[in-house]
Amino acid sequence: MSKPAPPELVLRTWPEIETYLAASKGIIVPAGSVEQHGVAGLLGTDVLCAEAVARRAAEAAGALMGPPIALGMAQFNLGFPGTLTLRPTTLIALVVDYVSSLARGGFERIYFVNGHGGNAAPIRSAFQEIYAARSLHPGERDRPLFLRLVNWWDVAAADALRKKLYAAAEGFHATPSEVAITAALHPERVRPAAFGPAPPAPPESALIQHGGDPYFDAADHRRRYPDGRVRSDPARATAADGAALLEAAAQGVAADYRAFLAAA
Amino acid sequence: MSKPAPPELVLRTWPEIETYLAASKGIIVPAGSVEQHGVAGLLGTDVLCAEAVARRAAEAAGALMGPPIALGMAQFNLGFPGTLTLRPTTLIALVVDYVSSLARGGFERIYFVNGHGGNAAPIRSAFQEIYAARSLHPGERDRPLFLRLVNWWDVAAADALRKKLYAAAEGFHATPSEVAITAALHPERVRPAAFGPAPPAPPESALIQHGGDPYFDAADHRRRYPDGRVRSDPARATAADGAALLEAAAQGVAADYRAFLAAA
Amino acid sequence: MSKPAPPELVLRTWPEIETYLAASKGIIVPAGSVEQHGVAGLLGTDVLCAEAVARRAAEAAGALMGPPIALGMAQFNLGFPGTLTLRPTTLIALVVDYVSSLARGGFERIYFVNGHGGNAAPIRSAFQEIYAARSLHPGERDRPLFLRLVNWWDVAAADALRKKLYAAAEGFHATPSEVAITAALHPERVRPAAFGPAPPAPPESALIQHGGDPYFDAADHRRRYPDGRVRSDPARATAADGAALLEAAAQGVAADYRAFLAAA
Amino acid sequence: MSKPAPPELVLRTWPEIETYLAASKGIIVPAGSVEQHGVAGLLGTDVLCAEAVARRAAEAAGALMGPPIALGMAQFNLGFPGTLTLRPTTLIALVVDYVSSLARGGFERIYFVNGHGGNAAPIRSAFQEIYAARSLHPGERDRPLFLRLVNWWDVAAADALRKKLYAAAEGFHATPSEVAITAALHPERVRPAAFGPAPPAPPESALIQHGGDPYFDAADHRRRYPDGRVRSDPARATAADGAALLEAAAQGVAADYRAFLAAA
Amino acid sequence: MSKPAPPELVLRTWPEIETYLAASKGIIVPAGSVEQHGVAGLLGTDVLCAEAVARRAAEAAGALMGPPIALGMAQFNLGFPGTLTLRPTTLIALVVDYVSSLARGGFERIYFVNGHGGNAAPIRSAFQEIYAARSLHPGERDRPLFLRLVNWWDVAAADALRKKLYAAAEGFHATPSEVAITAALHPERVRPAAFGPAPPAPPESALIQHGGDPYFDAADHRRRYPDGRVRSDPARATAADGAALLEAAAQGVAADYRAFLAAA
Amino acid sequence: MSKPAPPELVLRTWPEIETYLAASKGIIVPAGSVEQHGVAGLLGTDVLCAEAVARRAAEAAGALMGPPIALGMAQFNLGFPGTLTLRPTTLIALVVDYVSSLARGGFERIYFVNGHGGNAAPIRSAFQEIYAARSLHPGERDRPLFLRLVNWWDVAAADALRKKLYAAAEGFHATPSEVAITAALHPERVRPAAFGPAPPAPPESALIQHGGDPYFDAADHRRRYPDGRVRSDPARATAADGAALLEAAAQGVAADYRAFLAAA
Repeated sequence: MSKPAPPELVLRTWPEIETYLAASKGIIVPAGSVEQHGVAGLLGTDVLCAEAVARRAAEAAGALMGPPIALGMAQFNLGFPGTLTLRPTTLIALVVDYVSSLARGGFERIYFVNGHGGNAAPIRSAFQEIYAARSLHPGERDRPLFLRLVNWWDVAAADALRKKLYAAAEGFHATPSEVAITAALHPERVRPAAFGPAPPAPPESALIQHGGDPYFDAADHRRRYPDGRVRSDPARATAADGAALLEAAAQGVAADYRAFLAAA
Repeated sequence: MSKPAPPELVLRTWPEIETYLAASKGIIVPAGSVEQHGVAGLLGTDVLCAEAVARRAAEAAGALMGPPIALGMAQFNLGFPGTLTLRPTTLIALVVDYVSSLARGGFERIYFVNGHGGNAAPIRSAFQEIYAARSLHPGERDRPLFLRLVNWWDVAAADALRKKLYAAAEGFHATPSEVAITAALHPERVRPAAFGPAPPAPPESALIQHGGDPYFDAADHRRRYPDGRVRSDPARATAADGAALLEAAAQGVAADYRAFLAAA
Repeated sequence: MSKPAPPELVLRTWPEIETYLAASKGIIVPAGSVEQHGVAGLLGTDVLCAEAVARRAAEAAGALMGPPIALGMAQFNLGFPGTLTLRPTTLIALVVDYVSSLARGGFERIYFVNGHGGNAAPIRSAFQEIYAARSLHPGERDRPLFLRLVNWWDVAAADALRKKLYAAAEGFHATPSEVAITAALHPERVRPAAFGPAPPAPPESALIQHGGDPYFDAADHRRRYPDGRVRSDPARATAADGAALLEAAAQGVAADYRAFLAAA
Repeated sequence: MSKPAPPELVLRTWPEIETYLAASKGIIVPAGSVEQHGVAGLLGTDVLCAEAVARRAAEAAGALMGPPIALGMAQFNLGFPGTLTLRPTTLIALVVDYVSSLARGGFERIYFVNGHGGNAAPIRSAFQEIYAARSLHPGERDRPLFLRLVNWWDVAAADALRKKLYAAAEGFHATPSEVAITAALHPERVRPAAFGPAPPAPPESALIQHGGDPYFDAADHRRRYPDGRVRSDPARATAADGAALLEAAAQGVAADYRAFLAAA
Repeated sequence: MSKPAPPELVLRTWPEIETYLAASKGIIVPAGSVEQHGVAGLLGTDVLCAEAVARRAAEAAGALMGPPIALGMAQFNLGFPGTLTLRPTTLIALVVDYVSSLARGGFERIYFVNGHGGNAAPIRSAFQEIYAARSLHPGERDRPLFLRLVNWWDVAAADALRKKLYAAAEGFHATPSEVAITAALHPERVRPAAFGPAPPAPPESALIQHGGDPYFDAADHRRRYPDGRVRSDPARATAADGAALLEAAAQGVAADYRAFLAAA
Repeated sequence: MSKPAPPELVLRTWPEIETYLAASKGIIVPAGSVEQHGVAGLLGTDVLCAEAVARRAAEAAGALMGPPIALGMAQFNLGFPGTLTLRPTTLIALVVDYVSSLARGGFERIYFVNGHGGNAAPIRSAFQEIYAARSLHPGERDRPLFLRLVNWWDVAAADALRKKLYAAAEGFHATPSEVAITAALHPERVRPAAFGPAPPAPPESALIQHGGDPYFDAADHRRRYPDGRVRSDPARATAADGAALLEAAAQGVAADYRAFLAAA
């Protein structure tokens, strides 16, 4: 019996896509970032997590997965070498083209699995840029188009698990959750113990409101968080936790994606 | 005894700003939208609310208030006449110039009071666009710059009050909260009863996730919400509620602004 | 007897706009600037004047007035704190979106009342940018679209009056005319005597050609005009003059707007 | 005795420019358009006139002449084949780069001789775009930079002559003045009689205000002016008139340029 | 003995990059495309090949490899579903940000391994856009920056081998060379025989000049090459050939990269 | 017998273009650069050569010639005064508008004769930008559009002749070929002997790969090539050679253009 095709669009042929589109107009696209994740975290943590969740979710849902958006909006980490950023306007242009290409080919429901908080504002702006063109010029709107962005850690099961596992040690960057997933994916490269003990938490600042827009420029960021982690204790991560988190996030994404496909 | 100067920057002179800056580097900027708010809601609801909250907060905090950003990102409401939108990239450029001008003049802490959910992603993208220039080219960074965006309805006291007053009737657009504030500001123009009874709620759709990115293009939006309101019952608004909501939001913003100014 | 609706679009509802459009495709839009106007002039002088003229003209002509464009092209005044500028390309994008939104809603004749000389070139460029899209891609042109920009001080009656009142003391920036109008609007904030006597006129320079493009960068401008006024004597302004100038400009604009609406 | 070098920068070498800059920081740049000029007018009329005036003025003033900007903002003439346009934003980018290159090389006073009314707004916008960068980021301002734009027909002597020669027959496009200059330059290609008698003037329209922004889109323009001329009678042009107009304009430009160079 | 770190930057930590930069300022970046490659070729062929060559070359040269640029300039293949494109201006912005981020971190010699012909013009344009900023504003140039782009199939050993193996059957798109490499990488997904016999070559056209700019729009392209391949016979590919081609290209790139690093 | 019309579009009228288009949809457009060409080479060498070849080819083929694109992508020569550059993105915008205007008028086959290597990448990017709009939005594609770019020195007969005449002395910039053509065109301005003997060739550098992307920023370029020439010996140029090269290139272009027009 032949193995099923992998979910990656890059590993398919155009006639396979034509066949797929006859049955489904949906696709899952991972979006990450390449940026410092503390002294022992991988620069690719965000894109590796987003891609792993998206792939597993796509397998579970029988969906295609588009090629990952590797570089995200990470300007505040530029004080640490190896960090790469797109300006928000560049990321908007990239997402506009990506979505426009998929829509040109016949896709109508595009689901982004996000692995980096800093991407949310620019990607949502890109969605509205695409819709604005259709809304201002109704003649350009030939088919419906539905776009959604979900952070993998906001999926209910994943969120519950990471809070249960790490509570306040989860922090906001170089979190044990994402380190755990990368440890599951690349055990030879990720050794959580190498993070060392969490540094004393930097003083509370009313400048910083997590959930809001807590990041300023790179010089401010490195001064505030000298080793790169943000109030997290990634040394608590384990590969086993990572596998569980990955599965929880992926199953949650798959279920949400199926609902997204089916909805009117 | 002479009356204190009003908080509006537009009603000040440049020597007054020079004097102000010697004492404070902060300013409050309201951002709104001009878009349909149901059959009896003002097109300017969002900018009127943001400006009223910002002015009252500025008075309370002894702060300047910059001129309101009237047009926001409102493409999904273009199916209703009178709606005006900026594309996200235009709003980004506008905020970049506004902030750059303030920073050129000596301001270092700029606090946006937002009155329209659709603005959050583009304005946060603008913040990061500004920081990205400084982070990629450290030579351009001459002074610290801190930016914050707060939705007036997310301020704790306002949020509690609107939930207490309206619960699920608050909905997501043409909310009784914002209608109430405009009724307090323009009683001759806003008659909540004119909204009529709330239409039967449209069917739940897994496409729509409030708090996320639930808006698609204008054709989709008008089809889904034919009279413009989104799951709200604005007929319950009263001018008295509006005055209370306005005061709650303004005092909350003022307190948050003072903390923002003081923080390291 | 019920009061007529105010001309402000922001104080109308979408069904009111629908009704209005059935009778008229026109609208008046004020465009100003936020920039220094000498030691005793308001930073908002230009937008306050443009808005006041536009509102009064709209009342007289039974027209709608769109929300003011507050920030204009004012880079040369950035040497004085409180000045805000849009880059010309940002102002172009803003006007393109504003006009496109109105056109999407059904407006066909859009009349800009301008209060700041530096806006004329970018706003006229925006008009041509909009037309260029329609001319290069005739398929995008679904309806006629007529755009006009008028400086309020160029309207015949206003121009005659300001010359009669102030002659050469009118100058080019922080003019007694605009100071007079703001004195009429905000008597508690504008005290023309506070400008003090006009400084000795700076030496004539063949670099400067008023009516042309006489403004260079901010460093040059502040060096040339240290207190901000440009060859004007705003101490001569009075609130009574301002009221007369406002009425003259508004009636002239109203008449011109009516002709603009009626023309083939 | 060796002939003097021609004024064209393109016919000089870089060491010659280095020598020139030691004595003068000024340069003259012609800007034109390529667009229909009625049934017998050259498509290149505007650029040919601007270049001829600029070259003659440069010779008279001992100035360099930069390469002409051939394509201008001519969208309204796109209904006639052979017309080429830049969008205003493209023309702005082009002028920004042209000026930035000259400034990089050491030029400080750049004088544009304009041959097309539609260019004025975008070129003036470009000037302010350049200055805005310097004003917002004072660190970028290393040297003074003065920019001026003059329409050749606005120079006093040329303006007087064209009014004397043609009065109302001058009109606004495909004017006898510009046709006369091209007849002087290219007598074998320009035969004014071929224009035929002026068509009956189109009805007056309050939409059209010359001196302002009287041009709408290409479809409107061709409908309004079916043979391309705008209220002009170019059949009255003669090559002899053209030679006189060219000399009047060039001498006026040369004098104005000298004053521009000398001014503080 | 511990395994050496893999070349992928995404699998490194920021302190590892800091250590690397102390010894070398160079990095290799693969650039590909996601587009149809005939009826049996993978959509990701170009990015898979570029990444494989770059990784192997980086291992050989002891270099870092940056994250692949997956989406390239592939507009002409949009007639086949699954194809994704960036507009050239988007790809330019992306490369500008990628390079600027690397340069900010301390990299000075950046070597792009290209897997898609259509990328060469936009990526080279991006290089010049970066240099233009430094050349126009010398103050922005703090460190040297050297950029190079090499197509993997142009490396001498790879070029010789593919000509020897396939001669004219190599063609221009969905070539047996690239299919062979993907067969070596993903034998379970690539079965060259599934391409079937090469269709009769389309008629020669003087429109098409390979090596030049032979691609027009998507409608033209699909009409001209109905099954997606361009004059190639990919059925001749074998995984063994692919392994040899990959090694030849990688060793050639590694040698060229070493020379690039060492050169003055 | 009347003289035939010259090939220049700028010397035609719109009815002449209408007549031309009834017989042919093709046009030839020269693209050059204004940049240093060594101590005795003209700054306009590239645009003068491209225009001369294009004009002669157009005469031979009975084709129209559009106005030359004078400024090209020449950032690397900004270290020598008199050099002008467009940023690549500006050149792309310019070519997009130029082509869009021609296409709007009815042209379908546009042939660029290029005189500057640095233009090839941005102009080819512009072609793909135009096609990308048509491919992403098939509704915008109303007519076929074919674009080609040819460097005049790559035409077989010209290439053979320049190699025969100058062999390795041809070099890469300020080549004897282009100097010879300008000597034929402007004998009073170009004296090849004034170049002096070729300086000792700069050391070979693996950074530089001609045919690739061998140019970095202006500071690097002037350091590497202090007198501006790049490995060339232009003192060998003669006007007679120039005339022969011009004719060879023009006849080759004319033949290639005819084939381009005729091809399906």
